[in-house]
Amino acid sequence: MSTVKSFVSGSQFERSKLLTLFTLADDIKEHPKSYSNILSSKIITTLFFEPSTRTRLSFESAIQRLGGHLLTVENGELNSSSNKGESIADTIRIVEGYSDGIIMRHKQTEACQIAASISEVPIINAGDGSGEHPTQSLLDLYTIHSYKKKLDNLSIAIIGDLKYGRTVHSLVHALCLFENITIYGVSNEEFELPTTYDSLLLKHKIKYIKCRSLDELPLDIDVIYQTRLQNERTEAESIRDSIFVITKKIIEKFSPTTILMHPLPRNKEIDVAVDKDKRAVYFEQAKNGLYIRMALLTYIFNEEEQERLVIV
Amino acid sequence: MSTVKSFVSGSQFERSKLLTLFTLADDIKEHPKSYSNILSSKIITTLFFEPSTRTRLSFESAIQRLGGHLLTVENGELNSSSNKGESIADTIRIVEGYSDGIIMRHKQTEACQIAASISEVPIINAGDGSGEHPTQSLLDLYTIHSYKKKLDNLSIAIIGDLKYGRTVHSLVHALCLFENITIYGVSNEEFELPTTYDSLLLKHKIKYIKCRSLDELPLDIDVIYQTRLQNERTEAESIRDSIFVITKKIIEKFSPTTILMHPLPRNKEIDVAVDKDKRAVYFEQAKNGLYIRMALLTYIFNEEEQERLVIV
Amino acid sequence: MSTVKSFVSGSQFERSKLLTLFTLADDIKEHPKSYSNILSSKIITTLFFEPSTRTRLSFESAIQRLGGHLLTVENGELNSSSNKGESIADTIRIVEGYSDGIIMRHKQTEACQIAASISEVPIINAGDGSGEHPTQSLLDLYTIHSYKKKLDNLSIAIIGDLKYGRTVHSLVHALCLFENITIYGVSNEEFELPTTYDSLLLKHKIKYIKCRSLDELPLDIDVIYQTRLQNERTEAESIRDSIFVITKKIIEKFSPTTILMHPLPRNKEIDVAVDKDKRAVYFEQAKNGLYIRMALLTYIFNEEEQERLVIV
Repeated sequence: MSTVKSFVSGSQFERSKLLTLFTLADDIKEHPKSYSNILSSKIITTLFFEPSTRTRLSFESAIQRLGGHLLTVENGELNSSSNKGESIADTIRIVEGYSDGIIMRHKQTEACQIAASISEVPIINAGDGSGEHPTQSLLDLYTIHSYKKKLDNLSIAIIGDLKYGRTVHSLVHALCLFENITIYGVSNEEFELPTTYDSLLLKHKIKYIKCRSLDELPLDIDVIYQTRLQNERTEAESIRDSIFVITKKIIEKFSPTTILMHPLPRNKEIDVAVDKDKRAVYFEQAKNGLYIRMALLTYIFNEEEQERLVIV
Repeated sequence: MSTVKSFVSGSQFERSKLLTLFTLADDIKEHPKSYSNILSSKIITTLFFEPSTRTRLSFESAIQRLGGHLLTVENGELNSSSNKGESIADTIRIVEGYSDGIIMRHKQTEACQIAASISEVPIINAGDGSGEHPTQSLLDLYTIHSYKKKLDNLSIAIIGDLKYGRTVHSLVHALCLFENITIYGVSNEEFELPTTYDSLLLKHKIKYIKCRSLDELPLDIDVIYQTRLQNERTEAESIRDSIFVITKKIIEKFSPTTILMHPLPRNKEIDVAVDKDKRAVYFEQAKNGLYIRMALLTYIFNEEEQERLVIV
Repeated sequence: MSTVKSFVSGSQFERSKLLTLFTLADDIKEHPKSYSNILSSKIITTLFFEPSTRTRLSFESAIQRLGGHLLTVENGELNSSSNKGESIADTIRIVEGYSDGIIMRHKQTEACQIAASISEVPIINAGDGSGEHPTQSLLDLYTIHSYKKKLDNLSIAIIGDLKYGRTVHSLVHALCLFENITIYGVSNEEFELPTTYDSLLLKHKIKYIKCRSLDELPLDIDVIYQTRLQNERTEAESIRDSIFVITKKIIEKFSPTTILMHPLPRNKEIDVAVDKDKRAVYFEQAKNGLYIRMALLTYIFNEEEQERLVIV
């Protein structure tokens, strides 16, 4: 990897760096104007080989709120030179000539690692295939931290597709950085967390409790993390899955301090009647994506800010 | 509907507000530099679930001439979370977190009304399905007003597809705000204005004269509003429709003060030889879209400007 | 053609203008901050009816580094009014109302000439069909000039598809402006330079030497210009073409002052092991696209800069 500061993998997370970022995000949220010139002389490319409107807009809003300028590739798969047989490395070597940083999304796992290994400008991973989506984990952790004021000693239920869900896997990895974590994995038999995670959970002393029903969760649990049901399922499967749908009646059973999260978009796995409950924080969670991405960009691109943070 | 100032329907038009907007648009046209910082701290999203290059560019130019910053979704249908089953309401709740206002186009009628009812930032309707396209009506009225210095006592011919044309329907609705209006509806039998409009015309005392030929129009008519012939027609139909084509010879018969408008794009229903005639104002009309959208954005987003306008 | 200063064809090249642009590009490369407000009050539209990520980003980066604002049409073919039967002329008449200049790419040969003939704002050709791509030639010549400090008395090998390659044809045309040029055309029999070029080469006294192998090139040649092998070829053809692939072993045989260029994207016709050789300048060449486009935009849009250049 080059000496340039890229952010491509959750494995780069460290406890202290995370807390620094969270403090920075809080400050940005409170004093946005103090940060409005951080990227004023910078051009950042959002290079999306796979479209993702939500993630792209969140990054592009963050870049502009920091005063930066944008180059946008909304759907590189469709339009780009990659169709003419160009390698990821060649594409990066071109785009780094046009901009001061690259936010990259790609269908191919580890595409962002390859990019970061040769790029002379910072690369930020905005999701690569079935691999990682580390800024999603950042905003998840930031949201938990801002509500619970802790990341150690946490109890969290993760519901839905634990087998294929990239968001779920990244979150589990990120939780490994903290102490005394209890995870309740709620799913059908066919969507359980892969057994390849057993050794990771063991190594980091995470208590993992397999559940088949929402009824098995403790009512004072810190966090309920719901995920999206797949659209493509049969009707029979949908009916079976409906036992995991969170309704107003269900959420009201939990402690007032429990928070209900969701990476969004949602289908029917959280009833819209739940939206007004104070425990439902998923739209706040999405908005936190803006602040934590502003913090990450500030951290990566602003040298003065970095020095200040180091001194603090 | 929320207390936020959105603009989603022609039914929001009021005589006095329209004239205020026209005055503002005139001032912007004359003194563009005085308005170049109106949106300087704002990010506006153009959220187009259905592509429309012309309308999008017009809004994006307006936003940038007012100093604002842009987030663009050029083709949300193709790329967005809506493909993953997300509701309009959820999409808006996310995007309002990233930007200070949303210009929205959607295939679904009333999508913008739904959006405005829950949004915490202003929503502007840039066309929703077979429903409304109210800023098109704004620029049409503004163009008529700037040439004729009146909107009452107006005679106007509307030509072409009066049955399905969204632009036509919106224009008819808008004209209802004014007094002593005469409309000549020129079309084949199969493309007449729907009879559901009869009561509206009656209520607002609009004189509506059904025509089958351009020859039936008075030569001192104020406005001729031509619309696009459909591409998909048979050759026989095209030949029959050709009686509605406006040529140099036809336009020259009319008064020098008659103006010829068209919402564009055009096919062959106005001969290109007509473009140089002073009566042909359709490109000016398109450009007026820029000024009236700048006026609308100023009106919606700029509190000081609003106060000044109220005082005046 | 209107009196507006457009740049649509390589036939507009003149020796003295080219050298002025190269000097300007050098100055921009060295003192970018002096040029950061050249377009500060301008909106430029990149109107791409055919997608080309690389060329678009290069122009958009240039526009933003000069302080300009952007309207982007990434894929006009897919989305625009041209699908509704609108002519190029009508589209330009609309878009010129929204912006101060148009960077245009189109599938149709001479589309940009048509646009320039009616536009009231400058048109820059970013590639039209099998016609021209004159800013590619600009960056090619600029790169040669910056390495060799000359364009007269040049020896250059052009390798690959000489029959259909638009870049190749433009380069040959551009070289006609200079004196004592020797071109080595390296290709299979079926991809030779069309015989229609014979009279052009003769008129400008260009020495043209047809080659079937890289072995026929003089080892002190000034420039080797490699082009892309077509993807769609049969395996047998690919094996046959492989004799034109430039490897580390081959490039090392040439003089240290020989430069190896490629318009990019590449497939396998230059081995990646060659990238680190100092003779390999293709990524520098791509980056030069940014500076020469900044120079071109400065030349076209900045009146003060134009005057200064004239005085100098």
